[in-house]
Amino acid sequence: MALTDMEMERLTDLAEKKQFRKLKEILCDMNEVDIAEVLAELSTEQALVTFRLLPKDLATEVFSSMEVEEQQDIITSMDDRELHQIIEDLAIDDAVDLVEELPATVVKRILKNAASGTRQLINQYLQYPENSAGSIMTAEYVALRPAMTVEEAFYYIRKNGVDKETIYTCYVINPQRKLEGVVTLKDLLMSAYETRVEDIMDDNVMSALTTDDQEEVAATFRKYDLLALPVVDKEKRLVGIVTVDDIVDVMEEEATEDFQKMAAMSPSEKSYLKTSVFTLAKNRIVWLLVLMISSTISGLILSNYEKAFASVPMLVSFIPSIMNTGGNSGSQASTLIIRGMATGEIELKDVIKAIWKEIRVGLICGTILAIVNFGRLYFMYPDSLMISVVVVTSMFLAVVLGKVLGVILPMAAKALKLDPALMAAPLLTTILDSLSMVIYFSLATWLLSVG
Amino acid sequence: MALTDMEMERLTDLAEKKQFRKLKEILCDMNEVDIAEVLAELSTEQALVTFRLLPKDLATEVFSSMEVEEQQDIITSMDDRELHQIIEDLAIDDAVDLVEELPATVVKRILKNAASGTRQLINQYLQYPENSAGSIMTAEYVALRPAMTVEEAFYYIRKNGVDKETIYTCYVINPQRKLEGVVTLKDLLMSAYETRVEDIMDDNVMSALTTDDQEEVAATFRKYDLLALPVVDKEKRLVGIVTVDDIVDVMEEEATEDFQKMAAMSPSEKSYLKTSVFTLAKNRIVWLLVLMISSTISGLILSNYEKAFASVPMLVSFIPSIMNTGGNSGSQASTLIIRGMATGEIELKDVIKAIWKEIRVGLICGTILAIVNFGRLYFMYPDSLMISVVVVTSMFLAVVLGKVLGVILPMAAKALKLDPALMAAPLLTTILDSLSMVIYFSLATWLLSVG
Repeated sequence: MALTDMEMERLTDLAEKKQFRKLKEILCDMNEVDIAEVLAELSTEQALVTFRLLPKDLATEVFSSMEVEEQQDIITSMDDRELHQIIEDLAIDDAVDLVEELPATVVKRILKNAASGTRQLINQYLQYPENSAGSIMTAEYVALRPAMTVEEAFYYIRKNGVDKETIYTCYVINPQRKLEGVVTLKDLLMSAYETRVEDIMDDNVMSALTTDDQEEVAATFRKYDLLALPVVDKEKRLVGIVTVDDIVDVMEEEATEDFQKMAAMSPSEKSYLKTSVFTLAKNRIVWLLVLMISSTISGLILSNYEKAFASVPMLVSFIPSIMNTGGNSGSQASTLIIRGMATGEIELKDVIKAIWKEIRVGLICGTILAIVNFGRLYFMYPDSLMISVVVVTSMFLAVVLGKVLGVILPMAAKALKLDPALMAAPLLTTILDSLSMVIYFSLATWLLSVG
Repeated sequence: MALTDMEMERLTDLAEKKQFRKLKEILCDMNEVDIAEVLAELSTEQALVTFRLLPKDLATEVFSSMEVEEQQDIITSMDDRELHQIIEDLAIDDAVDLVEELPATVVKRILKNAASGTRQLINQYLQYPENSAGSIMTAEYVALRPAMTVEEAFYYIRKNGVDKETIYTCYVINPQRKLEGVVTLKDLLMSAYETRVEDIMDDNVMSALTTDDQEEVAATFRKYDLLALPVVDKEKRLVGIVTVDDIVDVMEEEATEDFQKMAAMSPSEKSYLKTSVFTLAKNRIVWLLVLMISSTISGLILSNYEKAFASVPMLVSFIPSIMNTGGNSGSQASTLIIRGMATGEIELKDVIKAIWKEIRVGLICGTILAIVNFGRLYFMYPDSLMISVVVVTSMFLAVVLGKVLGVILPMAAKALKLDPALMAAPLLTTILDSLSMVIYFSLATWLLSVG
């Protein structure tokens, strides 16, 4: 499917030996994504020469598939006329991505060389909030009129469809650009030529607002198996469409961000291998500091019970298993709740249902763990029965408490408009540690009369 | 977009008042996914009556969108003729899903009432391994011949395309069903009627093998922005296609499974709210037991140092922050590595690069944490300078060790063909706990001359 290492080597070899004619011949038969990968392997010099060999249409597609750094190299090497050409050929959302990621001086040159309509469109797109439907939509869609016949629609699509993001879903608008209906190319193809578009269009159109969150938009695509979704402004005017290939990227990004947040990191869209050591450290250190400071609370609690473990030192050796078991139990629950809320399956109104579920799961898991652990302790320390009772009871309570807090904390975060992912394992565990140590040593001082 | 609570109430109300004519009228204008949701809210009795009101084509679509339990109710209420009809109308992959999830007696009735061709196809699909391209593909695709003209192709599509999963990508096969090329409906539409399919088709076709893992297939869709991908058998014969809407579901499922595995649970495809307490407990208890037992190792290590904390009880209070900081530091690294390997961005050959990266990140984070912590300790316990040195040094080493193990363990799992997600926070933390306690108390006994 993708390029093998051997094919890649052969192509870079051709570039090094300056056999550009042969190289061009092979590249022209390849997928644009793969060509961009080949260019990334070449030296800047070689990449520029090779890029200029490509036919114009293919070059634009390859350009869209490149990484920002390489796009910048290409742009720097272009004169104003070439730059104008490529900007006008790019889909508007790709042009916007460029403008958002390149340094200011390059952006200035890009905007200067864009046609005034394109410049306006780019500026409009830049105003949509990050991660909104507006920020991921494209303006390249097919718009039909209700009174067109199927034959006229086909004529229009054949004439105007080449540069559109998709021609398979067409949008029917009135003269004020208000969205009136949607018709698929399949519907058009299955209808007689004289049929009017308004008679076959579906006027019950789903749409997103420009300000809708991309995660919600993705949920709609998933639920209804969509290929494209129109985006309208507050006046219901059609301003763009979101296509499924962008949604696939959104889903990927959102899941990756959640993984990062749930492991106590600032989310980053950049790929791991390309992120600098400094940035990686920066994304991690804040949470590490917060959690280090918070976990000193468990330490302070422990120092209150110094007498207890001075007289029964054995108590200390059970600290890790009580803390870990409580923490693991809690993070199982919180992970399911956080993920369920991210996919839209669990809502705030389910809070009671979820707590009641987790209490019961906690009782079952806690009981099994307690029995197994008691057996082990009885076998290893047959003379310390009371200590075993204290350990096992504390663990049982930590497990149930973990399950309950695993539901309450993320849902409370959501209710407070905070990100539920913040309440994943790291923070939850730190909180649970303190609570389980209070339980453990309270029980110990009470039942063992120490401290 | 989706149904509001009010609309839902109005529709269930109509069913209760037996105003089925009115109900039918509204439903017929709705999306099949929403109709399935309405039926799920009704009593079995009402749902059956309402389902039978729907026009045949819509009914099949609604049926495909239903949950298994409700599909079973519908099937049970059908006579053999009706059952035959709906099975033949279902896409083959939906029929296979049914057969895989329903109880054996119902399956027997389904297979008995399927046409022999359908039965054969179902049996063939059932043999593809779980989560393979074969298991998610559909047989409803448009296959063209190279020698067809564009006009003939359109005629063929108009005649045969209605029930196909997609008509927007068509596959060109030779008489042995070997895949020769691919042509999009857009290509056909943009070409003259007399052009031959073989002249406009792309003969550099990407395809998947029936046995390819669905996660790999999803990565290909993402990389190349595909709408559909053909699936071939070992002889390169076309046997089906995978469409992007199924890939969207696969991505969702795979991410959810990884979240579950990384929080030490057996993955489950069922939604949280619909999973029974017993199943939830079953999915969690095994890992909780394994981790509880493993964390007793840290306990055993601690009990070796009873003398140390009997003479300096203060040492105990630093256990949580050393363990947690090391654990959090490690799970940050392992999360990025595991996710990177799942999306295909990080490969085994990157192991040295990643370790070197994490060593440096660990040195930076460890140094900052050590400085902050030393400041705090110096302020709180000005007389225990040596203890502070021991604590801070142990934490620093635990942080660096955490980062390195966070790379090594998941990559080692991958190299051993195990699931890297097993090496996420829970297990990693348990291993790190033991190591950091050895470091901490070795340093303590050495530098403080206790124990």
